[in-house]
Amino acid sequence: MKRALGVCYYPEHWPEAIWAEDAARMVETGISWVRIGEFAWSRIEPSFGDLQFDWLDRAIEVLGSAGLKVILGTPTATPPRWMLDKHPDMLAWDAQGRERGFGSRRHYDFSHDGYREECARIVDILARRYGANPHVAAWQTDNEYDCHDTVLSYSPAAERAFQNWLAETYGTIEALNTAWGNVFWSMEYDHFEQIALPNLTVTEPNPSHVLAFRRFSSDMVVKFNKVQVGLIRAQTDAPITHNYMGRVTAFDHYDVGADLEIASWDSYPIGFLSDRLEEPAAHKQRYLRQGDPDFQAFHHDLYRAVGKGRWWVMEQQPGPVNWAPYNPAPLPGMARLWAWEAFAHGAEVVTYFRWRQAPFAQEQMHAGLLRPDSEAAPGLAEAAQVAAELVEAPDVSAAQAPVALVFDYASQWAWETQPQGADFDYFRLCFEMYRGLRKLGLSVDILPPDCADLSGYKVVLAPGLLELSGALKGALERFDGQAMLGPRTNTKTGEMVIPVPMGPNIDGLDTVIALTESLPPSEMMPLLKGGTFVKWFEHLKGDAEVVEALVDGRPAMVQAGAIRYLAGWPDEEALARILEDLCEAAGVVTLNPPDGLRLRDTGAHRFYINYNAFEVEFDGLLIGAADVTWRPL
Amino acid sequence: MKRALGVCYYPEHWPEAIWAEDAARMVETGISWVRIGEFAWSRIEPSFGDLQFDWLDRAIEVLGSAGLKVILGTPTATPPRWMLDKHPDMLAWDAQGRERGFGSRRHYDFSHDGYREECARIVDILARRYGANPHVAAWQTDNEYDCHDTVLSYSPAAERAFQNWLAETYGTIEALNTAWGNVFWSMEYDHFEQIALPNLTVTEPNPSHVLAFRRFSSDMVVKFNKVQVGLIRAQTDAPITHNYMGRVTAFDHYDVGADLEIASWDSYPIGFLSDRLEEPAAHKQRYLRQGDPDFQAFHHDLYRAVGKGRWWVMEQQPGPVNWAPYNPAPLPGMARLWAWEAFAHGAEVVTYFRWRQAPFAQEQMHAGLLRPDSEAAPGLAEAAQVAAELVEAPDVSAAQAPVALVFDYASQWAWETQPQGADFDYFRLCFEMYRGLRKLGLSVDILPPDCADLSGYKVVLAPGLLELSGALKGALERFDGQAMLGPRTNTKTGEMVIPVPMGPNIDGLDTVIALTESLPPSEMMPLLKGGTFVKWFEHLKGDAEVVEALVDGRPAMVQAGAIRYLAGWPDEEALARILEDLCEAAGVVTLNPPDGLRLRDTGAHRFYINYNAFEVEFDGLLIGAADVTWRPL
Amino acid sequence: MKRALGVCYYPEHWPEAIWAEDAARMVETGISWVRIGEFAWSRIEPSFGDLQFDWLDRAIEVLGSAGLKVILGTPTATPPRWMLDKHPDMLAWDAQGRERGFGSRRHYDFSHDGYREECARIVDILARRYGANPHVAAWQTDNEYDCHDTVLSYSPAAERAFQNWLAETYGTIEALNTAWGNVFWSMEYDHFEQIALPNLTVTEPNPSHVLAFRRFSSDMVVKFNKVQVGLIRAQTDAPITHNYMGRVTAFDHYDVGADLEIASWDSYPIGFLSDRLEEPAAHKQRYLRQGDPDFQAFHHDLYRAVGKGRWWVMEQQPGPVNWAPYNPAPLPGMARLWAWEAFAHGAEVVTYFRWRQAPFAQEQMHAGLLRPDSEAAPGLAEAAQVAAELVEAPDVSAAQAPVALVFDYASQWAWETQPQGADFDYFRLCFEMYRGLRKLGLSVDILPPDCADLSGYKVVLAPGLLELSGALKGALERFDGQAMLGPRTNTKTGEMVIPVPMGPNIDGLDTVIALTESLPPSEMMPLLKGGTFVKWFEHLKGDAEVVEALVDGRPAMVQAGAIRYLAGWPDEEALARILEDLCEAAGVVTLNPPDGLRLRDTGAHRFYINYNAFEVEFDGLLIGAADVTWRPL
Repeated sequence: MKRALGVCYYPEHWPEAIWAEDAARMVETGISWVRIGEFAWSRIEPSFGDLQFDWLDRAIEVLGSAGLKVILGTPTATPPRWMLDKHPDMLAWDAQGRERGFGSRRHYDFSHDGYREECARIVDILARRYGANPHVAAWQTDNEYDCHDTVLSYSPAAERAFQNWLAETYGTIEALNTAWGNVFWSMEYDHFEQIALPNLTVTEPNPSHVLAFRRFSSDMVVKFNKVQVGLIRAQTDAPITHNYMGRVTAFDHYDVGADLEIASWDSYPIGFLSDRLEEPAAHKQRYLRQGDPDFQAFHHDLYRAVGKGRWWVMEQQPGPVNWAPYNPAPLPGMARLWAWEAFAHGAEVVTYFRWRQAPFAQEQMHAGLLRPDSEAAPGLAEAAQVAAELVEAPDVSAAQAPVALVFDYASQWAWETQPQGADFDYFRLCFEMYRGLRKLGLSVDILPPDCADLSGYKVVLAPGLLELSGALKGALERFDGQAMLGPRTNTKTGEMVIPVPMGPNIDGLDTVIALTESLPPSEMMPLLKGGTFVKWFEHLKGDAEVVEALVDGRPAMVQAGAIRYLAGWPDEEALARILEDLCEAAGVVTLNPPDGLRLRDTGAHRFYINYNAFEVEFDGLLIGAADVTWRPL
Repeated sequence: MKRALGVCYYPEHWPEAIWAEDAARMVETGISWVRIGEFAWSRIEPSFGDLQFDWLDRAIEVLGSAGLKVILGTPTATPPRWMLDKHPDMLAWDAQGRERGFGSRRHYDFSHDGYREECARIVDILARRYGANPHVAAWQTDNEYDCHDTVLSYSPAAERAFQNWLAETYGTIEALNTAWGNVFWSMEYDHFEQIALPNLTVTEPNPSHVLAFRRFSSDMVVKFNKVQVGLIRAQTDAPITHNYMGRVTAFDHYDVGADLEIASWDSYPIGFLSDRLEEPAAHKQRYLRQGDPDFQAFHHDLYRAVGKGRWWVMEQQPGPVNWAPYNPAPLPGMARLWAWEAFAHGAEVVTYFRWRQAPFAQEQMHAGLLRPDSEAAPGLAEAAQVAAELVEAPDVSAAQAPVALVFDYASQWAWETQPQGADFDYFRLCFEMYRGLRKLGLSVDILPPDCADLSGYKVVLAPGLLELSGALKGALERFDGQAMLGPRTNTKTGEMVIPVPMGPNIDGLDTVIALTESLPPSEMMPLLKGGTFVKWFEHLKGDAEVVEALVDGRPAMVQAGAIRYLAGWPDEEALARILEDLCEAAGVVTLNPPDGLRLRDTGAHRFYINYNAFEVEFDGLLIGAADVTWRPL
Repeated sequence: MKRALGVCYYPEHWPEAIWAEDAARMVETGISWVRIGEFAWSRIEPSFGDLQFDWLDRAIEVLGSAGLKVILGTPTATPPRWMLDKHPDMLAWDAQGRERGFGSRRHYDFSHDGYREECARIVDILARRYGANPHVAAWQTDNEYDCHDTVLSYSPAAERAFQNWLAETYGTIEALNTAWGNVFWSMEYDHFEQIALPNLTVTEPNPSHVLAFRRFSSDMVVKFNKVQVGLIRAQTDAPITHNYMGRVTAFDHYDVGADLEIASWDSYPIGFLSDRLEEPAAHKQRYLRQGDPDFQAFHHDLYRAVGKGRWWVMEQQPGPVNWAPYNPAPLPGMARLWAWEAFAHGAEVVTYFRWRQAPFAQEQMHAGLLRPDSEAAPGLAEAAQVAAELVEAPDVSAAQAPVALVFDYASQWAWETQPQGADFDYFRLCFEMYRGLRKLGLSVDILPPDCADLSGYKVVLAPGLLELSGALKGALERFDGQAMLGPRTNTKTGEMVIPVPMGPNIDGLDTVIALTESLPPSEMMPLLKGGTFVKWFEHLKGDAEVVEALVDGRPAMVQAGAIRYLAGWPDEEALARILEDLCEAAGVVTLNPPDGLRLRDTGAHRFYINYNAFEVEFDGLLIGAADVTWRPL
């Protein structure tokens, strides 16, 4: 697969007179893909049934004639205002019971049948018109599902759909009452129509109720996307993708990804560090103009799994954005570094967002490759440099990593529902383990929770998994490397109930979680070998071999054969040691790169990615501030 | 009165096949009381009128036959889902105007006539069926009034009931307008139906309006409870109680308690320290696994007053709970210490919550005496130890304390309504004085605000009382010990109006509060004798004798005969000295126990209760970490 | 113009029997003005059409006969309860969509036609009755527009009025779509009735939409006020004013002021410091009992501009208030200092709020000049002292200051709408520059954004102006002093769109803002000459002369002739140097008074105002704690 650059473009924002010049400059910059169309519904269909494709025909022709491949987005993330007149009940409601109105974007409820049908209608029309267009080389459905927290809706439409989903899922109300333990607090229902959405209850609702709602909400996204995919695929062989976001966990991306050829995501490293990561102030300050050194890589690896190996960056930050609390400019070099890091993790295409900064509306302070006055913004030269470098290094060559981390969306929902400790966050737990591996110089694959084959891996981590799937259980039984599960792994059923026998319930591992405690930030539970547990500690009972202990002697990790179970949340020091031990036991060589330098191995090369604002030396190489380099393995 | 242990049990949660074994294990543990039934409405009456008592008959029989005395709870805290179909307007509304829906518990409005009648119906049926049952030895009404802030409701039902209450209370709208000073800001009403609930006003509502609403809301709880009590009492001589909570002040517990034989409360020391006490981080860390050393005792003494001498702990924390932000495990010994501290304060029964940890629903992470797999949790052995010790020390022997503290619910409402300083909290003021007394080794009685007899007490404190009742004024005039009032005591009328002459208006004490100021945390007003006022300072004018002064000479405490008036909020150092002086003047001997050790005298013994995680020495005794011991006085 | 003292009085709160005595004491204190009537609607018209003027006739007669001049307020800030029965939809709605109900004050929507007509009716009646009354010497419309954030309303009435305003403003929906850039995200409208208010959207609404709503909301206040002014003016020659508040920016005060003879404002220095200023804790502690040393002065100068030279303090804090989080007492002397500072800035009248502390309702803890029991509160003697001093210094003698600062309400709305950095606040930016000038001992004039004449000024500052008006552009071109614009000045059009050519677009200044970044508090961008930029940095490109640079050499300020453009937000150190340089270049002499001492020059005197709690020495004078003194220039 060839690596390539792209850019996001909105012809409807600009005079038609400058389209050709824009296209020529894109090509001159070395860009080969251009994404268009995904917010243009009001121009495609200004009023119901009044289809206006001339301008889009011409835009595609201009871009395509210049040598660009077009990614065509379906416009369903921004229904025009008339749609709301036609379907007044199509809006999502927030958890406080307020309608989320027109005037920005994503103003629809995934469960609304009428709106889903409108989407099918317009997508079908688009697909029929452009499915065979030689310039349209890929399709994107909608835009950033769940952006602005739009997956969970508490509308009447959602309530009806949820009741139907429950009826299909449980069959009888008795089955649901039993599965959820509704005898507790007399919460038993007589029929499905009595079941409200789990918001605005007096105190917290039944966690089984909430988890079912989370599963339902995810399924609605899958259904919404699948309708569009089916209609597009009927008209074209071009690959279809969706552009996911960073740290969005409200729907199961594996499930959506199962219907798509390619996963893609929108990478805004500086905005994400500011807005979506809990890190100490010193960390945020250190990486203020670079972004977190692991956040992008985590998502690259995650979406490679979601895309079953094929993935893109669909939107790449090129300069300051407009939506984080503070929006500093990237260090010179970062727009290039981010692109190369993506390629190192196997991206086929990296698409900058956007070509020219819009001077109006919500994103007018969001930088593009061009300024509003069409002069070059700093990102343009960096994009051109990447394009030039790609000529020398055109091929994506992915390789299986030695280490795998299981990441599961339902576990995120489960522990959000019932964290038990205020700061127990599943993503955070996985991300800390991922970061710990990266600090040891390792490349990592992320695996879905129903992964049935671990062959080729030497180390597998599966922290915090709600429950082990049958497939993964089987794979672990056959596994000949070193696996570390826990904390909290397999401690519930999928219905959010404590199983008896109690977890973690791993074959051959004689241990049971007798008692669980969550800990405030002030409380440490030091480990004998160094470091400490924080946040979480499970009291293990049983005869399994103890391989880590608290200073007071209580078990902290137990082991049987290839499987270890970790009974707490390790701090950075403890985690580093535990991971090193694990790798050593598995025969995985770990490295000690300087802080802020990250490594990534493809099949052919090792990449050295320096997130620091200063030069570092490693492996006999000098890697400059905000620079990336590579050499053959 | 004999001391005894109990446990909370939910037969409806478990297969009937294991009831007998459970009962036998309870008895074997030394437990003699078992509370059941209080959330079981959906099993007692699965649909309206379909009464299903067979299972409950059998449960009571099994438990009773094993030798256990049953406390039967009325199930009115958890109306089944069908009740909502029957009474769609029965739900409470929060202050933001949102209905508080079905799906957890306490989903009802105390003012709703229809629901109160449904409660009367089911309670009458229960009382008639089990009133004469030999195993049912006590009754509990509902469960934890106001838990989840359910006393204040802003529903249409509440509004109608409030208007009726106002009409009854004030007679004419002119009387109300005058009493509230509605001429201010043209807030005058023409008739009672115009008076809305005091939420969602443009800026703060008239404090007299708010205080009336608080009194009304409390009265609704009293009325709700009284209906149940009357119906139960008609069928049985067994004592009736209600299980109150910690730091719940939304209704007047004395008023509810007047209708009950026994007060009881639910004691969760670790959860309460985390969730319901403002304390410095170091204090919270020090007592993380023990709970605050005074919070339980305060409530023991408060509910002894509410119960007119008779009181129980109805739910005793046995391990980690599920509902605080963080939920660590108690230190070994605490489940025993808490029980013994309750007995030392006069509890007749201490009932652990709950027998077996439920594996499902909201409280699945709440420890019981048994684990979900029926193995012993750590609390079981401690309960058994308490039971064994009770054989040697079976009798409750209360004694009047030398010191009394007046605690008044209406004062809490008044200062919540108009704190004047953001952190002026009445409970906190009383609790700090209570803690100050305890640190001097003293036992304390808590008195209601209409207490008419102070005989036997040497020291009486009445800080922050909205207004002095006629009864208490009279008692203070006759008092021959040392009383300390203030700050803020008797500075308003019961209608929340500044009286003229201005407060504190105490006979014989020539002082007036010329000006009041509240102080941010940074501002200190040091006292001449040491320590400082914080938060609050009243400028006193008049000829009363000054017994404490600021360093700048302004009066800080004045005295006339047996009455002192304190003009500010003392910090810990100032409070300690002021209390010592007071005790010395009154002939009360104070002690200096080590930090974290608390003493409590019954009629016969002195108890030494060590909340520390380490051993301390006092009075020639070594008291271990988290240990309690006692010896004859 | 003569200086004089006044007081706010509510005859309806007190027995008629004491009115005459109150009036006599006022006169004895040296008070000559008394404001009445502004909350008395329920007493003037207890039910619709039932006019009760006898009491008000007598009150005016009693006060006037005693020698007091009456300021008569229209009562429209507190419509009686019956008004709501008549106009149930007259209430404002908050941004969360909740009606803001009856029970306090300001419960009306400025856009409600029916309520505006009711106001016209009662004002007309009042004006006809008292327009020729010899004691009524001034009028006040309503009370504190926007107090309790009442200008922005999201009610159905506001929505209809907004749609009408948009139709009038834009003419066609196509014009609006183009002006707002609604092609972005398919936000295009088909007709005006589709345009909702910009609240409760999924993510942020179009900033052009929000800014239009802000302009509309301001216009509604202007319209509301203008109706009252017209009716009063028809009956009297007495001056009309409105009493504005501190740091209220929700409507354009210049626009309201254009219809009034006199501006006035309500000055609560201690409450404002606590509640309305972001300052470090040490600053708040230092000035806890004095108020911020520049906040009052800023508003004095602002409202002098709003009043086109004529302005009053209509409510002056005399002691602790009731509405801030904490309410300490002023230092002795402050009630005098505040009044004299106002006079030094040109106030004609300073009116203390209020005569006697009300013992009831919301403000019962708000001090007056008298206590509730009619004894003197501390403020009374200070007022009397000011009155005595006024005999010696009776005349207001304003003078043009050497330095001017442009302040613009629309800029506040614009940067609230799109701050880009979380703490970018326009008021703050202007206030820091104002404070910087004051610390150099300078007197400052504040100018409106459409100021067309800068003659007489040596230095002009115009930071953060959304866009330069034609008038101001012209004045700057003719200006022969030193002007400093920026950061952010003239970077948008009035429609909230980035202009091309890009800002700041100043004739003769060859610079363009190529890129803008906002900075978290941790990020500094140090300047070569000392100090640093914080919060904000604009990358300037072009050939303009660089007069300040970052340590890395990038331009920080550029200059052409009389105009400088500042590219970032300077910290205190940088600002002091930049202002000194500017003044030096302009020939303005700066001073170095001790911290906390402020100077103010009238035409005849220099005032020395010591906000410190300790004595300072300057200019050969000793100025005591909380003291003010003056001497001839």
